[in-house]
Amino acid sequence: MSRLRIHNLTVSLDGYVAGPGQSLEYPLGRGSERLHDWAFATRTFRAMHGMDGGATGIDDDFAAAGQAGIGATIMGRNMFGPIRGPWGSPEWRGWWGENPPYHHPVFVLTHHPRPPLTMEGGTTFHFVTGGVQEALDQAAEAAADRDILIGGGANTVQQYLRAGLVDEMHLAIVPVILGGGARLFDDVAGMPGYEPVALAASASAMHVKMSRIGS
Amino acid sequence: MSRLRIHNLTVSLDGYVAGPGQSLEYPLGRGSERLHDWAFATRTFRAMHGMDGGATGIDDDFAAAGQAGIGATIMGRNMFGPIRGPWGSPEWRGWWGENPPYHHPVFVLTHHPRPPLTMEGGTTFHFVTGGVQEALDQAAEAAADRDILIGGGANTVQQYLRAGLVDEMHLAIVPVILGGGARLFDDVAGMPGYEPVALAASASAMHVKMSRIGS
Repeated sequence: MSRLRIHNLTVSLDGYVAGPGQSLEYPLGRGSERLHDWAFATRTFRAMHGMDGGATGIDDDFAAAGQAGIGATIMGRNMFGPIRGPWGSPEWRGWWGENPPYHHPVFVLTHHPRPPLTMEGGTTFHFVTGGVQEALDQAAEAAADRDILIGGGANTVQQYLRAGLVDEMHLAIVPVILGGGARLFDDVAGMPGYEPVALAASASAMHVKMSRIGS
Repeated sequence: MSRLRIHNLTVSLDGYVAGPGQSLEYPLGRGSERLHDWAFATRTFRAMHGMDGGATGIDDDFAAAGQAGIGATIMGRNMFGPIRGPWGSPEWRGWWGENPPYHHPVFVLTHHPRPPLTMEGGTTFHFVTGGVQEALDQAAEAAADRDILIGGGANTVQQYLRAGLVDEMHLAIVPVILGGGARLFDDVAGMPGYEPVALAASASAMHVKMSRIGS
Protein backbone atom coordinates (compact mmCIF):
# COMPACT_ATOMS: atom_id res chain seq x y z
CA MET A 1 0.00 0.00 0.00
CA SER A 2 1.25 3.45 -0.88
CA ARG A 3 2.64 5.56 1.94
CA LEU A 4 2.22 9.32 2.07
CA ARG A 5 5.62 10.93 2.61
CA ILE A 6 7.12 14.37 3.11
CA HIS A 7 10.77 14.90 2.22
CA ASN A 8 13.22 17.76 2.16
CA LEU A 9 10.72 20.14 3.72
CA THR A 10 13.02 22.93 4.83
CA VAL A 11 12.17 24.83 7.98
CA SER A 12 13.96 27.87 9.39
CA LEU A 13 15.23 27.78 12.94
CA ASP A 14 12.18 29.77 13.95
CA GLY A 15 9.81 27.35 12.26
CA TYR A 16 8.96 28.94 8.91
CA VAL A 17 8.84 27.21 5.53
CA ALA A 18 8.49 30.54 3.73
CA GLY A 19 9.45 34.06 4.68
CA PRO A 20 7.26 37.13 5.11
CA GLY A 21 6.01 39.05 2.08
CA GLN A 22 5.38 36.27 -0.45
CA SER A 23 4.94 37.70 -3.95
CA LEU A 24 5.50 36.88 -7.60
CA GLU A 25 9.01 38.26 -7.30
CA TYR A 26 9.67 36.44 -4.02
CA PRO A 27 7.52 33.29 -4.24
CA LEU A 28 8.85 31.99 -0.94
CA GLY A 29 8.96 35.37 0.79
CA ARG A 30 11.83 37.60 1.79
CA GLY A 31 14.97 35.93 3.12
CA SER A 32 13.79 32.49 2.11
CA GLU A 33 16.38 32.01 -0.64
CA ARG A 34 18.77 31.04 2.16
CA LEU A 35 16.43 28.25 3.25
CA HIS A 36 17.24 25.99 0.35
CA ASP A 37 20.95 26.56 -0.13
CA TRP A 38 21.65 23.16 1.43
CA ALA A 39 19.43 21.44 -1.15
CA PHE A 40 20.59 23.39 -4.20
CA ALA A 41 24.16 22.39 -3.37
CA THR A 42 23.46 18.66 -3.60
CA ARG A 43 24.18 16.44 -6.55
CA THR A 44 20.59 15.13 -6.44
CA PHE A 45 18.93 18.54 -6.78
CA ARG A 46 21.38 19.66 -9.44
CA ALA A 47 20.72 16.50 -11.44
CA MET A 48 16.94 17.05 -11.08
CA HIS A 49 17.41 20.40 -12.75
CA GLY A 50 19.76 19.21 -15.48
CA MET A 51 23.03 20.38 -13.89
CA ASP A 52 26.23 18.46 -13.32
CA GLY A 53 28.24 18.22 -10.12
CA GLY A 54 27.09 19.03 -6.63
CA ALA A 55 27.82 17.80 -3.15
CA THR A 56 27.47 14.26 -1.91
CA GLY A 57 27.20 13.31 1.76
CA ILE A 58 24.48 13.69 4.39
CA ASP A 59 22.51 16.42 2.63
CA ASP A 60 22.59 14.60 -0.66
CA ASP A 61 21.56 11.32 0.95
CA PHE A 62 18.44 12.97 2.35
CA ALA A 63 17.75 14.79 -0.90
CA ALA A 64 17.95 11.52 -2.84
CA ALA A 65 15.71 9.67 -0.37
CA GLY A 66 12.94 12.09 -1.26
CA GLN A 67 12.81 10.71 -4.79
CA ALA A 68 13.18 7.01 -4.00
CA GLY A 69 10.06 4.95 -4.61
CA ILE A 70 7.80 7.91 -5.37
CA GLY A 71 5.07 7.37 -7.98
CA ALA A 72 3.00 10.54 -7.58
CA THR A 73 3.22 13.99 -6.03
CA ILE A 74 0.56 16.14 -4.37
CA MET A 75 1.01 19.90 -4.07
CA GLY A 76 -0.97 22.96 -3.15
CA ARG A 77 -2.02 25.39 -5.78
CA ASN A 78 0.33 28.08 -4.49
CA MET A 79 3.26 25.76 -5.03
CA PHE A 80 2.16 25.23 -8.61
CA GLY A 81 2.01 28.92 -9.35
CA PRO A 82 1.49 32.48 -8.14
CA ILE A 83 -1.98 32.89 -9.67
CA ARG A 84 -4.92 33.21 -7.27
CA GLY A 85 -8.58 32.80 -8.16
CA PRO A 86 -9.71 31.45 -11.58
CA TRP A 87 -7.06 30.28 -14.02
CA GLY A 88 -6.07 33.06 -16.42
CA SER A 89 -5.35 32.87 -20.13
CA PRO A 90 -2.68 32.16 -21.28
CA GLU A 91 -2.74 29.56 -18.57
CA TRP A 92 0.09 29.15 -16.14
CA ARG A 93 2.03 25.91 -16.75
CA GLY A 94 4.01 25.68 -13.49
CA TRP A 95 7.32 27.13 -12.34
CA TRP A 96 9.43 24.40 -13.94
CA GLY A 97 9.34 24.91 -17.72
CA GLU A 98 8.14 22.34 -20.23
CA ASN A 99 9.94 19.40 -18.61
CA PRO A 100 9.24 19.55 -14.85
CA PRO A 101 11.46 17.54 -12.52
CA TYR A 102 8.67 15.16 -11.42
CA HIS A 103 8.33 12.65 -14.28
CA HIS A 104 5.16 11.23 -12.78
CA PRO A 105 1.56 12.40 -12.16
CA VAL A 106 1.26 15.51 -9.98
CA PHE A 107 -2.02 16.33 -8.23
CA VAL A 108 -2.60 20.02 -7.59
CA LEU A 109 -5.15 21.00 -4.93
CA THR A 110 -7.31 23.87 -6.16
CA HIS A 111 -10.81 25.30 -5.96
CA HIS A 112 -10.79 25.99 -9.71
CA PRO A 113 -11.30 23.10 -12.14
CA ARG A 114 -8.97 22.75 -15.08
CA PRO A 115 -8.25 19.90 -17.52
CA PRO A 116 -5.09 17.86 -16.98
CA LEU A 117 -1.92 19.43 -18.31
CA THR A 118 0.52 17.01 -19.91
CA MET A 119 4.12 18.18 -19.89
CA GLU A 120 7.29 16.65 -21.29
CA GLY A 121 9.19 13.91 -19.47
CA GLY A 122 6.25 12.07 -17.94
CA THR A 123 4.83 14.82 -15.73
CA THR A 124 1.08 15.42 -15.96
CA PHE A 125 -0.56 17.99 -13.69
CA HIS A 126 -4.03 16.96 -12.51
CA PHE A 127 -6.18 19.61 -10.85
CA VAL A 128 -8.22 18.25 -7.96
CA THR A 129 -11.12 20.26 -6.54
CA GLY A 130 -12.44 17.67 -4.08
CA GLY A 131 -9.97 18.20 -1.23
CA VAL A 132 -7.09 16.32 0.33
CA GLN A 133 -8.66 12.88 0.57
CA GLU A 134 -9.72 12.92 -3.07
CA ALA A 135 -6.24 14.03 -4.14
CA LEU A 136 -4.73 11.24 -2.07
CA ASP A 137 -7.08 8.65 -3.57
CA GLN A 138 -6.24 9.75 -7.10
CA ALA A 139 -2.53 9.90 -6.32
CA ALA A 140 -2.61 6.42 -4.75
CA GLU A 141 -4.22 5.00 -7.86
CA ALA A 142 -1.60 6.67 -10.04
CA ALA A 143 1.29 5.61 -7.82
CA ALA A 144 0.17 1.95 -7.72
CA ASP A 145 2.70 0.17 -5.52
CA ARG A 146 4.94 3.21 -5.13
CA ASP A 147 4.59 5.99 -2.54
CA ILE A 148 3.14 9.49 -2.72
CA LEU A 149 5.12 12.64 -1.99
CA ILE A 150 3.59 15.81 -0.59
CA GLY A 151 5.49 18.53 -2.38
CA GLY A 152 4.17 21.43 -0.27
CA GLY A 153 3.55 24.16 0.64
CA ALA A 154 2.82 24.73 4.29
CA ASN A 155 -0.94 24.88 3.98
CA THR A 156 -1.12 21.61 2.08
CA VAL A 157 1.20 19.89 4.54
CA GLN A 158 -0.92 21.17 7.43
CA GLN A 159 -4.12 19.86 5.86
CA TYR A 160 -2.64 16.38 5.50
CA LEU A 161 -1.14 16.44 9.01
CA ARG A 162 -4.48 17.48 10.53
CA ALA A 163 -6.23 14.72 8.62
CA GLY A 164 -3.77 12.19 10.05
CA LEU A 165 -2.75 11.02 6.58
CA VAL A 166 1.03 11.61 6.62
CA ASP A 167 3.03 8.43 7.26
CA GLU A 168 6.52 9.84 7.28
CA MET A 169 8.15 13.26 7.24
CA HIS A 170 11.70 14.40 6.77
CA LEU A 171 12.38 17.98 7.81
CA ALA A 172 15.59 19.85 7.11
CA ILE A 173 16.09 22.53 9.75
CA VAL A 174 18.43 25.29 8.66
CA PRO A 175 20.26 27.79 10.89
CA VAL A 176 18.41 30.77 9.47
CA ILE A 177 16.05 33.00 11.45
CA LEU A 178 13.37 34.48 9.17
CA GLY A 179 11.37 36.36 11.78
CA GLY A 180 8.02 35.75 10.10
CA GLY A 181 6.24 34.01 7.27
CA ALA A 182 4.39 30.72 6.93
CA ARG A 183 4.87 28.52 9.97
CA LEU A 184 4.95 24.79 9.37
CA PHE A 185 3.42 23.70 12.67
CA ASP A 186 0.49 26.09 12.77
CA ASP A 187 -3.10 24.98 13.02
CA VAL A 188 -2.24 21.28 13.26
CA ALA A 189 -4.15 20.46 16.46
CA GLY A 190 -5.28 16.85 16.41
CA MET A 191 -2.43 15.57 14.29
CA PRO A 192 -1.30 12.05 15.26
CA GLY A 193 1.87 11.19 17.15
CA TYR A 194 5.21 10.80 15.44
CA GLU A 195 8.45 9.21 16.57
CA PRO A 196 11.95 9.91 15.31
CA VAL A 197 13.62 7.36 13.07
CA ALA A 198 16.70 9.36 12.07
CA LEU A 199 18.58 12.47 13.19
CA ALA A 200 21.60 13.88 11.41
CA ALA A 201 23.42 17.13 10.77
CA SER A 202 25.65 18.43 8.00
CA ALA A 203 27.49 21.74 8.03
CA SER A 204 24.39 23.33 6.46
CA ALA A 205 21.30 21.65 7.88
CA MET A 206 19.92 19.43 10.60
CA HIS A 207 17.80 16.57 9.39
CA VAL A 208 15.09 14.68 11.22
CA LYS A 209 12.89 11.92 9.89
CA MET A 210 9.69 11.22 11.83
CA SER A 211 7.37 8.27 11.36
CA ARG A 212 3.74 8.15 12.41
CA ILE A 213 3.38 6.05 15.55
CA GLY A 214 1.69 2.80 14.65
CA SER A 215 2.12 3.26 10.92
CA MET B 1 34.15 41.89 28.47
CA SER B 2 31.44 39.46 29.55
CA ARG B 3 29.36 37.84 26.82
CA LEU B 4 25.70 37.00 27.29
CA ARG B 5 25.13 33.38 26.33
CA ILE B 6 22.27 30.91 26.03
CA HIS B 7 23.05 27.21 26.27
CA ASN B 8 21.13 23.97 26.26
CA LEU B 9 17.87 25.70 25.53
CA THR B 10 15.74 22.81 24.41
CA VAL B 11 13.11 23.38 21.76
CA SER B 12 10.55 20.89 20.46
CA LEU B 13 10.36 20.21 16.74
CA ASP B 14 7.37 22.54 16.61
CA GLY B 15 9.24 25.33 18.38
CA TYR B 16 8.13 25.15 22.00
CA VAL B 17 10.34 25.37 25.08
CA ALA B 18 7.47 24.37 27.38
CA GLY B 19 4.28 22.44 26.73
CA PRO B 20 0.67 23.51 27.15
CA GLY B 21 -0.95 23.61 30.61
CA GLN B 22 1.93 24.81 32.81
CA SER B 23 1.11 24.28 36.51
CA LEU B 24 2.76 23.56 39.83
CA GLU B 25 2.51 19.85 39.06
CA TYR B 26 3.77 20.28 35.49
CA PRO B 27 6.07 23.31 35.68
CA LEU B 28 7.07 22.94 32.04
CA GLY B 29 3.63 21.93 30.82
CA ARG B 30 2.27 18.65 29.60
CA GLY B 31 4.53 16.45 27.48
CA SER B 32 7.56 18.57 28.22
CA GLU B 33 9.33 15.93 30.32
CA ARG B 34 10.42 14.40 27.02
CA LEU B 35 12.11 17.64 26.02
CA HIS B 36 15.00 17.24 28.40
CA ASP B 37 15.69 13.51 28.23
CA TRP B 38 18.78 14.19 26.12
CA ALA B 39 20.21 16.48 28.82
CA PHE B 40 19.32 14.35 31.82
CA ALA B 41 21.18 11.45 30.24
CA THR B 42 24.47 13.32 30.06
CA ARG B 43 27.34 12.99 32.51
CA THR B 44 27.44 16.78 32.91
CA PHE B 45 23.82 17.15 34.01
CA ARG B 46 24.02 14.13 36.28
CA ALA B 47 27.14 15.54 37.93
CA MET B 48 25.42 18.93 38.36
CA HIS B 49 22.74 17.17 40.35
CA GLY B 50 25.08 15.00 42.39
CA MET B 51 24.72 11.79 40.42
CA ASP B 52 27.38 9.50 38.99
CA GLY B 53 27.58 8.13 35.48
CA GLY B 54 25.81 9.39 32.39
CA ALA B 55 26.54 9.58 28.71
CA THR B 56 29.50 11.25 27.09
CA GLY B 57 29.61 12.31 23.44
CA ILE B 58 27.93 15.07 21.45
CA ASP B 59 25.11 15.78 23.89
CA ASP B 60 27.47 15.87 26.84
CA ASP B 61 29.91 18.13 25.01
CA PHE B 62 27.15 20.68 24.47
CA ALA B 63 25.86 20.30 28.01
CA ALA B 64 29.32 20.95 29.42
CA ALA B 65 29.93 23.96 27.19
CA GLY B 66 27.01 25.65 28.91
CA GLN B 67 28.94 25.73 32.16
CA ALA B 68 32.33 26.73 30.84
CA GLY B 69 33.43 30.22 31.74
CA ILE B 70 30.11 31.27 33.28
CA GLY B 71 30.27 33.62 36.28
CA ALA B 72 26.62 34.59 36.71
CA THR B 73 23.16 33.44 35.61
CA ILE B 74 20.03 35.45 34.79
CA MET B 75 16.62 33.82 34.92
CA GLY B 76 12.98 34.79 34.82
CA ARG B 77 10.89 34.61 37.92
CA ASN B 78 8.83 31.69 36.57
CA MET B 79 11.98 29.66 36.23
CA PHE B 80 12.83 30.39 39.84
CA GLY B 81 9.47 29.19 41.10
CA PRO B 82 5.76 28.68 40.51
CA ILE B 83 4.62 31.60 42.67
CA ARG B 84 2.97 34.58 40.95
CA GLY B 85 2.42 38.01 42.48
CA PRO B 86 4.01 39.05 45.81
CA TRP B 87 6.37 36.64 47.52
CA GLY B 88 4.54 34.44 50.06
CA SER B 89 5.64 33.35 53.51
CA PRO B 90 7.36 30.95 54.08
CA GLU B 91 9.21 32.22 51.07
CA TRP B 92 9.97 30.01 48.09
CA ARG B 93 13.69 29.18 47.87
CA GLY B 94 13.88 27.85 44.31
CA TRP B 95 13.32 24.42 42.77
CA TRP B 96 16.81 23.15 43.55
CA GLY B 97 17.01 22.56 47.33
CA GLU B 98 19.52 24.20 49.65
CA ASN B 99 22.51 23.69 47.34
CA PRO B 100 21.44 24.79 43.84
CA PRO B 101 23.57 23.71 40.88
CA TYR B 102 24.73 27.24 40.01
CA HIS B 103 27.54 28.01 42.50
CA HIS B 104 27.60 31.65 41.42
CA PRO B 105 25.30 34.70 41.67
CA VAL B 106 21.90 34.26 40.04
CA PHE B 107 19.81 37.28 39.04
CA VAL B 108 16.06 36.69 39.04
CA LEU B 109 13.87 39.10 37.06
CA THR B 110 10.77 40.01 39.06
CA HIS B 111 8.33 42.84 39.70
CA HIS B 112 8.41 42.11 43.45
CA PRO B 113 11.42 43.23 45.51
CA ARG B 114 13.01 40.77 47.88
CA PRO B 115 16.35 40.71 49.73
CA PRO B 116 19.11 38.47 48.34
CA LEU B 117 18.85 34.81 49.26
CA THR B 118 22.15 33.12 50.04
CA MET B 119 22.14 29.37 49.52
CA GLU B 120 24.79 26.74 50.07
CA GLY B 121 27.57 26.11 47.59
CA GLY B 122 28.13 29.65 46.40
CA THR B 123 24.70 30.38 44.89
CA THR B 124 23.05 33.66 45.88
CA PHE B 125 19.73 34.65 44.33
CA HIS B 126 19.43 38.39 43.69
CA PHE B 127 15.99 39.74 42.83
CA VAL B 128 16.08 42.46 40.20
CA THR B 129 13.06 44.71 39.64
CA GLY B 130 14.60 47.13 37.15
CA GLY B 131 14.34 45.03 33.99
CA VAL B 132 16.66 43.15 31.67
CA GLN B 133 19.36 45.80 31.26
CA GLU B 134 19.69 46.28 35.00
CA ALA B 135 19.90 42.53 35.55
CA LEU B 136 22.57 42.31 32.88
CA ASP B 137 24.56 45.15 34.42
CA GLN B 138 24.46 43.54 37.85
CA ALA B 139 25.32 40.13 36.42
CA ALA B 140 28.23 41.55 34.44
CA GLU B 141 29.66 43.12 37.57
CA ALA B 142 29.30 39.83 39.44
CA ALA B 143 30.75 37.78 36.60
CA ALA B 144 33.80 40.05 36.22
CA ASP B 145 35.82 38.56 33.34
CA ARG B 146 33.59 35.54 32.95
CA ASP B 147 30.40 35.27 30.87
CA ILE B 148 26.73 35.44 31.80
CA LEU B 149 24.25 32.65 31.14
CA ILE B 150 20.56 33.23 30.49
CA GLY B 151 18.92 30.31 32.26
CA GLY B 152 15.41 30.87 30.86
CA GLY B 153 12.52 30.67 30.44
CA ALA B 154 11.06 31.65 27.11
CA ASN B 155 9.83 35.09 28.13
CA THR B 156 13.20 36.08 29.57
CA VAL B 157 15.05 34.81 26.51
CA GLN B 158 12.66 36.76 24.27
CA GLN B 159 13.22 39.97 26.21
CA TYR B 160 16.99 39.68 25.81
CA LEU B 161 16.72 38.72 22.13
CA ARG B 162 14.46 41.70 21.42
CA ALA B 163 16.86 44.00 23.24
CA GLY B 164 19.70 42.74 21.04
CA LEU B 165 21.76 41.69 24.06
CA VAL B 166 22.33 37.97 23.39
CA ASP B 167 25.80 37.25 21.98
CA GLU B 168 25.54 33.52 21.48
CA MET B 169 22.86 30.87 21.68
CA HIS B 170 22.93 27.11 21.62
CA LEU B 171 19.60 25.43 20.97
CA ALA B 172 18.96 21.72 21.30
CA ILE B 173 16.12 20.72 19.00
CA VAL B 174 14.46 17.47 19.99
CA PRO B 175 12.26 15.24 17.81
CA VAL B 176 9.18 15.79 19.94
CA ILE B 177 6.00 17.53 18.76
CA LEU B 178 4.23 19.24 21.67
CA GLY B 179 1.37 20.84 19.76
CA GLY B 180 1.25 23.93 21.96
CA GLY B 181 2.86 25.80 24.83
CA ALA B 182 5.45 28.56 25.05
CA ARG B 183 7.08 29.26 21.70
CA LEU B 184 10.70 30.34 21.76
CA PHE B 185 10.64 32.56 18.68
CA ASP B 186 7.50 34.53 19.46
CA ASP B 187 7.40 38.27 19.76
CA VAL B 188 11.07 38.74 18.86
CA ALA B 189 10.66 41.22 16.00
CA GLY B 190 13.69 43.45 15.75
CA MET B 191 16.17 40.93 17.12
CA PRO B 192 19.61 41.18 15.49
CA GLY B 193 21.01 38.75 12.94
CA TYR B 194 22.72 35.51 13.92
CA GLU B 195 24.97 33.18 11.98
CA PRO B 196 25.61 29.50 12.65
CA VAL B 197 28.92 28.48 14.19
CA ALA B 198 28.18 24.81 14.86
CA LEU B 199 25.65 22.18 13.82
CA ALA B 200 25.57 18.64 15.16
CA ALA B 201 23.20 15.78 15.89
CA SER B 202 23.19 12.90 18.34
CA ALA B 203 20.63 10.11 18.41
CA SER B 204 18.51 12.26 20.75
CA ALA B 205 18.88 15.89 19.72
CA MET B 206 20.01 18.27 17.03
CA HIS B 207 22.27 21.05 18.20
CA VAL B 208 22.88 24.45 16.70
CA LYS B 209 25.02 27.24 18.02
CA MET B 210 24.36 30.72 16.64
CA SER B 211 26.51 33.80 17.14
CA ARG B 212 25.31 37.38 16.76
CA ILE B 213 26.57 38.82 13.49
CA GLY B 214 29.27 41.34 14.26
CA SER B 215 29.65 40.30 17.88
